[in-house]
Amino acid sequence: MSEFQYSESDLDAVYRVIYERRDMRHFVPSPVDQNVLRKLLNAAHKAPSVGLMQPWRFIRITDEALRKILYLCVQEEAKKTADALGERKQEFLRLKIEGILHCGELIVVALPPGRDKHIFGRRTLPEMDLASAACAIQNMWLAARAEGLGMGWVSIFDPAELSKLLSMPPGSHPIAILCLGHVKEFYSEPMLVTENWAEEKSLDEMLHENSWE
Amino acid sequence: MSEFQYSESDLDAVYRVIYERRDMRHFVPSPVDQNVLRKLLNAAHKAPSVGLMQPWRFIRITDEALRKILYLCVQEEAKKTADALGERKQEFLRLKIEGILHCGELIVVALPPGRDKHIFGRRTLPEMDLASAACAIQNMWLAARAEGLGMGWVSIFDPAELSKLLSMPPGSHPIAILCLGHVKEFYSEPMLVTENWAEEKSLDEMLHENSWE
Repeated sequence: MSEFQYSESDLDAVYRVIYERRDMRHFVPSPVDQNVLRKLLNAAHKAPSVGLMQPWRFIRITDEALRKILYLCVQEEAKKTADALGERKQEFLRLKIEGILHCGELIVVALPPGRDKHIFGRRTLPEMDLASAACAIQNMWLAARAEGLGMGWVSIFDPAELSKLLSMPPGSHPIAILCLGHVKEFYSEPMLVTENWAEEKSLDEMLHENSWE
Repeated sequence: MSEFQYSESDLDAVYRVIYERRDMRHFVPSPVDQNVLRKLLNAAHKAPSVGLMQPWRFIRITDEALRKILYLCVQEEAKKTADALGERKQEFLRLKIEGILHCGELIVVALPPGRDKHIFGRRTLPEMDLASAACAIQNMWLAARAEGLGMGWVSIFDPAELSKLLSMPPGSHPIAILCLGHVKEFYSEPMLVTENWAEEKSLDEMLHENSWE
């Protein structure tokens, strides 16, 4: 045991939030407390980042007309995704994939321009900027769950279209439309399991020692 | 306030771990309890993933000769990174960028082959597989901190070389060498800030409303 280990109750709280976090698509439209929103964004901003580049920008959507346009963008891409899925098209179309119109807060996350000048940890793996931004979103997701708020990460959109809509500078790249807000209940398991879209694999299927083979 | 909000002490524990997690490079070589390692890998495995594809594999390095080879790979790429950094070359070479030889556990994380068949949430943003794997690593990082263990994410390596060394199948892609283990102390701030490599930007520089401009 490490001398730096948290108390049993604090340790339990950390595992609890990791296990209870869900990708939510169902929201109730009550407003999100602005102090809580600030705490969540600060949690995101405390994420690790490759070479400390902090490659994340958050665009809060408060314009209701713009929210509807983002919703339509996602609907449009969802149709293309459905077509690309072939035999699972109808099954996909029955799934609820986002909660854009009902969530209390809508936040777009983007990678900023000018990332090429960051070479530390990215010479051979330039995609580490996205990895850092994903860590930020995971921090926010966990903090939101502890605050009793649901969050969903929507990646069904055309990034070029979203960039244009939100006047993003050339070289930036949107990676998420985050739906955040109050919920009636949290899913007890991933919604895609409940809806029989996919089965969860076990950890043991993911483990190797010294060699993949 | 949400009816699903955690107790004040549980909420504090979640924020505490988010704030106290550090990217560690200094370790003491005591072994990591195998039950704790399993808990950390389970925490990683509970991460969200796009379309529930769970695109992560963990290769535990227990062969000491292999550990040394991975160390040399990182050293080799560090030299190339230093050269690419130009005027900051000497400054970079003075930084400690990894703790591979001293950490109790060394784990390589890779994206599995066959990811192309997963279209859900990836038709326009195929890189969402990496985002999911990064969320898994962030879960593991946070759980490790709560257990009193340090972790560092090393991305200074040639992925093709690492794939070959670990007999990864074609189409897989290594994204991290994770150093995990006991530490003498946790950094009080990111090491790259202490070492004057970079300054942390404020959250306010990252926020926009409705439009980037």
